[in-house]
Amino acid sequence: MSIAHLTEKSPEEYEYPATIAALQKQFGDRVLTSDAVREQFGKDESFHPSKWPHAVIKVHDKEEVQQIVRICAEHKTPIIPHGAGTSLEGNVAALKGGVTIDTSEMNQIIAVHSEDFDVVVQPGVTRRQLNEYLRDTGMFFPIDPGANASIGGMASTRASGTNAVRYGTMRDNVINVEAVLADGTIIRTGNRAVKSAAGYDLTRLLVGSEGTLAMITEVTLKVYPIPEAISAAVCTFDEVSDAVNSVIQIIQYGIPIARVELLDSLTMKSINMYSKTDYAESPTLFLEFHGSENGVKEQSELTEEITKENNGGKFSWTSNTEERTKMWRARHDVAWAGKLLHPKGQIWSTDVCVPISRLADCIGETRQDIEETGLLAPMVGHVGDGNFHLLLLVDHENQEEVEAAEALHHRMVLRALSMDGTCTGEHGIGYGKIEFLEIEHGAAVNPMKMIKKTLDPDNLFNPGKIFGMM
Amino acid sequence: MSIAHLTEKSPEEYEYPATIAALQKQFGDRVLTSDAVREQFGKDESFHPSKWPHAVIKVHDKEEVQQIVRICAEHKTPIIPHGAGTSLEGNVAALKGGVTIDTSEMNQIIAVHSEDFDVVVQPGVTRRQLNEYLRDTGMFFPIDPGANASIGGMASTRASGTNAVRYGTMRDNVINVEAVLADGTIIRTGNRAVKSAAGYDLTRLLVGSEGTLAMITEVTLKVYPIPEAISAAVCTFDEVSDAVNSVIQIIQYGIPIARVELLDSLTMKSINMYSKTDYAESPTLFLEFHGSENGVKEQSELTEEITKENNGGKFSWTSNTEERTKMWRARHDVAWAGKLLHPKGQIWSTDVCVPISRLADCIGETRQDIEETGLLAPMVGHVGDGNFHLLLLVDHENQEEVEAAEALHHRMVLRALSMDGTCTGEHGIGYGKIEFLEIEHGAAVNPMKMIKKTLDPDNLFNPGKIFGMM
Repeated sequence: MSIAHLTEKSPEEYEYPATIAALQKQFGDRVLTSDAVREQFGKDESFHPSKWPHAVIKVHDKEEVQQIVRICAEHKTPIIPHGAGTSLEGNVAALKGGVTIDTSEMNQIIAVHSEDFDVVVQPGVTRRQLNEYLRDTGMFFPIDPGANASIGGMASTRASGTNAVRYGTMRDNVINVEAVLADGTIIRTGNRAVKSAAGYDLTRLLVGSEGTLAMITEVTLKVYPIPEAISAAVCTFDEVSDAVNSVIQIIQYGIPIARVELLDSLTMKSINMYSKTDYAESPTLFLEFHGSENGVKEQSELTEEITKENNGGKFSWTSNTEERTKMWRARHDVAWAGKLLHPKGQIWSTDVCVPISRLADCIGETRQDIEETGLLAPMVGHVGDGNFHLLLLVDHENQEEVEAAEALHHRMVLRALSMDGTCTGEHGIGYGKIEFLEIEHGAAVNPMKMIKKTLDPDNLFNPGKIFGMM
Repeated sequence: MSIAHLTEKSPEEYEYPATIAALQKQFGDRVLTSDAVREQFGKDESFHPSKWPHAVIKVHDKEEVQQIVRICAEHKTPIIPHGAGTSLEGNVAALKGGVTIDTSEMNQIIAVHSEDFDVVVQPGVTRRQLNEYLRDTGMFFPIDPGANASIGGMASTRASGTNAVRYGTMRDNVINVEAVLADGTIIRTGNRAVKSAAGYDLTRLLVGSEGTLAMITEVTLKVYPIPEAISAAVCTFDEVSDAVNSVIQIIQYGIPIARVELLDSLTMKSINMYSKTDYAESPTLFLEFHGSENGVKEQSELTEEITKENNGGKFSWTSNTEERTKMWRARHDVAWAGKLLHPKGQIWSTDVCVPISRLADCIGETRQDIEETGLLAPMVGHVGDGNFHLLLLVDHENQEEVEAAEALHHRMVLRALSMDGTCTGEHGIGYGKIEFLEIEHGAAVNPMKMIKKTLDPDNLFNPGKIFGMM
């Protein structure tokens, strides 16, 4: 994927006047076609420029989604499902124009089954909205990609984040979905039993399919009891390798740590600039422990022993909720913080994930590579999963910088693949990583495409994503 | 599914002389065609009668599987993947004859990545073989369906068992698979990263597909550190409902119990007869706790408090490995034990799974139903998952008994479905539960069939399973 040859608008050959007319007949002035709206909805939080849909419609229920899908199917018009727009690989860009279905007002929490630890939500519910709603129930939804993403978007991207080392990813936490297929059929992929051996796992097929197979209209999610005790700590190191080796040993020891995030020196510097904190500007781990009072004590003592053996500093504890929230807010704001390091720079956020045994090598070689390029690229990571991110700070008007970043990115992803890792742990393919999907999956891309073609023969759903234009 | 209209042999219209000749050219006298072998491989451990394949070939590597698939594809001949033959819904029956691929000697443990807690195995490796191999590494593979099933079979059936409440099912523990598709292509569905957002989740699509989409030739599995402490206990109750309510509260309290099995009075009676034990013949929970010394103590104290509040008896602890093994052996032998209750009876083992909030109702109504029929049907269950089994003891020569059992079974499955549960938690559909798949998944069966048809257009792989003959 080259940044250079992206254009700002949808190619002119795609025009869908009959679709727009049919939609207007049904939905009246709810069919939004202003330039401002189209531009906004064609863009996510990544550096990928906006690719405009022809229209945007806010929906409220599955019947409306079904009506739009049927109209678009009749006129062979692309449909782009849209959640909170927080994706990072251009996943919401309307590469062939078409109709964006905005789920931001399809945000009802339909049921909370507290005895079963599950909730049923519409796709536009955001993770913060869900957790605010759940607060008084003693339960929470742990998946936390940083951004206040929508549940539908998170399911579609197979998102994860800081808590995944303990609670898994969307793959593990979506119990079933309801979705509208390309022919307008509404299906439900499962029921509320926590396990089933009945038929193909359509739930897991739709989770991570980035809106290319169906439009998700409802999600049933696992939720968890809020732990009796939570404690968080910050630990600094002189060397990144010592921090990484600590994490590897924490995981290998089987400590059920809830969060363990690596932030390198540059990231810590940017956090101090942005969040007005006074953290040491050296490689740092942010840690969090969940459990019973005794369990948390045991976990954190063991963890501190491990970090000490790896030359880590003393744990700085953040015991109350407010301090803890501030710490994780600082972690989540690293993208904004990074911008301060390079005023002309746009952020190119990318992630890879490798087996934990290769994490130290992968991070070490990548850091050396960054130093050799002279680029600014803070590194942060959900390292308990072997997953880390680079925030490449790139001035898109500086061709040399753009090319150096592209080459660095390419080497980083190939490095992860050569270590039996994946080209993306949690951002998805979108249209930014298509070339790497091919390298990673080889012959397995073909059955994926066959599934896409049989379920969506006219390539209505989010065309151009994951596989390119087909 | 009616027991009555099953026939013993494959229909005569299916004959594949050209396939057999081509296989013999390639594999010589490794192509087994004796009646004894065909009969053996056409049958699993269920009551479903043997449906013979035309030939059986033991394979050793993926290249041999690929050769057989190519020959069978050329001649449009069914391929039935075969592991240990321990399935329970006729999953290995050759309904249209064809070629059974026996993986029992494709049983190499290819790699143990102890730093990453994963292992790579050929599909014929059994779970006991794997755990014996792992013993000295300090790791174990927790999924335990009772039978000494093969890993390939367990992946194909999305198996689980006693430990699933803590460690999940095969869905959660298969990291990736290698498989041969119907066109002979060999694919790998993923890499060894613990999470990925790259493309469709073909791993989860093949897990649970019962050999209908591809033939699995290698499986990468999660393994776990052997817990520092393990302790097990037996607790008896006067009423099944008290036992069930205890389990519901244990789960709702968030206690990370490793195993919690319900055995009803009839099951306990059969265990005492078979295993020469002297357990109380009343509703019983078998419990197991894994963790640190303190963690196990804390978990078990909390659990005992809960069972006491629900009128449970004192915990009888089995602290050493030998006693614990004996207890779980007795649990796993309930199928054999059940036979002693009804000398002319064959065992019809079936399972359903419901949300835990409905478990007490589902078990209660099912028990009442059993009593009203007068059938013998011991009940056991992985109740922490909401999953339970009936062992219907049926004299197949007694038409009245057969009909009563069929009707009871039908009511039990529909009851579970009406409670937002599934028609099978872990046995799979095979060809015994096809009618229920349709009821459970409704419109979602069609996309499943579309996937089957596009990936296996000639219906080579295990035809007649999950969807019927198509």
